[in-house]
Amino acid sequence: MCNEKNAYTLILASASPRRKEFLEHLNIPFEIKTMSIKEETDCTLPDEIVLDLAKKKGIAVFNELQRLKDQKEKNSNFADSFFPLIVAADTLVFLGKEQLGRPRDALDAKEMLKKLSGKQHFVYTGVYIVCFDIEKNMQRERSFYCKTEVDFAHITEDFLEEYIKSGESMDKAGAYGIQGSALSFISGIKGSYSNVVGFPLYEFVVQLKDFLGCRDDNEGEWRKKFKRTK
Amino acid sequence: MCNEKNAYTLILASASPRRKEFLEHLNIPFEIKTMSIKEETDCTLPDEIVLDLAKKKGIAVFNELQRLKDQKEKNSNFADSFFPLIVAADTLVFLGKEQLGRPRDALDAKEMLKKLSGKQHFVYTGVYIVCFDIEKNMQRERSFYCKTEVDFAHITEDFLEEYIKSGESMDKAGAYGIQGSALSFISGIKGSYSNVVGFPLYEFVVQLKDFLGCRDDNEGEWRKKFKRTK
Repeated sequence: MCNEKNAYTLILASASPRRKEFLEHLNIPFEIKTMSIKEETDCTLPDEIVLDLAKKKGIAVFNELQRLKDQKEKNSNFADSFFPLIVAADTLVFLGKEQLGRPRDALDAKEMLKKLSGKQHFVYTGVYIVCFDIEKNMQRERSFYCKTEVDFAHITEDFLEEYIKSGESMDKAGAYGIQGSALSFISGIKGSYSNVVGFPLYEFVVQLKDFLGCRDDNEGEWRKKFKRTK
Repeated sequence: MCNEKNAYTLILASASPRRKEFLEHLNIPFEIKTMSIKEETDCTLPDEIVLDLAKKKGIAVFNELQRLKDQKEKNSNFADSFFPLIVAADTLVFLGKEQLGRPRDALDAKEMLKKLSGKQHFVYTGVYIVCFDIEKNMQRERSFYCKTEVDFAHITEDFLEEYIKSGESMDKAGAYGIQGSALSFISGIKGSYSNVVGFPLYEFVVQLKDFLGCRDDNEGEWRKKFKRTK
């Protein structure tokens, strides 16, 4: 349907190096564009909170890119062939009803890990996809969330000190990353692993294929809808 | 109990870069020493197979290091202060009763992934710990295994081709690595994540502390039993 000119440019609306790394596995060139938003929501349920925050991040980038595109078209009197498809995500850790985001500082990180020590918690990621549909000539969006159960063993005081000092807690929801030395106190998980890292890759591919109206068993079909070069 | 002179040297009896990376998370210096063994066993059950192969790998390295130590002591007439504590592991993928090891070549990798596509399988890692106990003056060993459930979505033919071409299948049991682009077809796991990578880190720490007779809540105690410098 789409030739290279008439294809989407994949935009990741996140500065997370881990989300970037995961999206790279899909072998589609993408760009990173983020907008600073207030990470606030009126929602109260875990799934609603991450979905709302992901949407806020995604919409901010979409609107900005549309504004720039409109401006360009106005100045040149030609239709711009840039069609961004934006992907935004928000990941939070929930211990019962308590929400744990990124720690403010080392002390905050320590408090979070003390709370999580020896307990089971859930990691939620909300994902939001938005584009101006090239074929249907309208704005379209899609949201989904993913939930993974994570079991922590008891974290000893000494290890906690070491872990905080290592700096691995910073910039991660719940003050830990499953990729690093936290593995020595993570006794098990149930569900998507990539979701715990911050981006449910398998679920994203399934949703994206469906969003683009492509058959699940044809890799070529959905990939062709994206620009192959940056 | 042990001063720096009278402490263990941690030896990883595996050439796997992923096991090395995981062990590095423990912040104890270690050396890598491997011996070539025939990876054959008379065992038939998954847990028994990985335990037997891990032991074979570990014992080969232990015996070789003891031989070198004896030789050194014989020549110098002094007791050598090198006390190796060896850790060996073996990881296999089981699809029902069928055992999937490392693929021989790209064709073999493709066959394995086709078998695993759309199905649930189990990853087993057997871990073997052996040392000449400094305090008890005797050879001591410990074995345990870890089992994780992994769910694969359907892998499309196109993606399979790409994945094989990427080379990620090679040198990995079951022809996939959970760290890479396989995440786009791994729909979920249940149990230890590090076990799927090839070394159950949390379980190892628990077992090692107990093996060394150390309390679970004191990080300092078990770490002191190892040499802090290489």
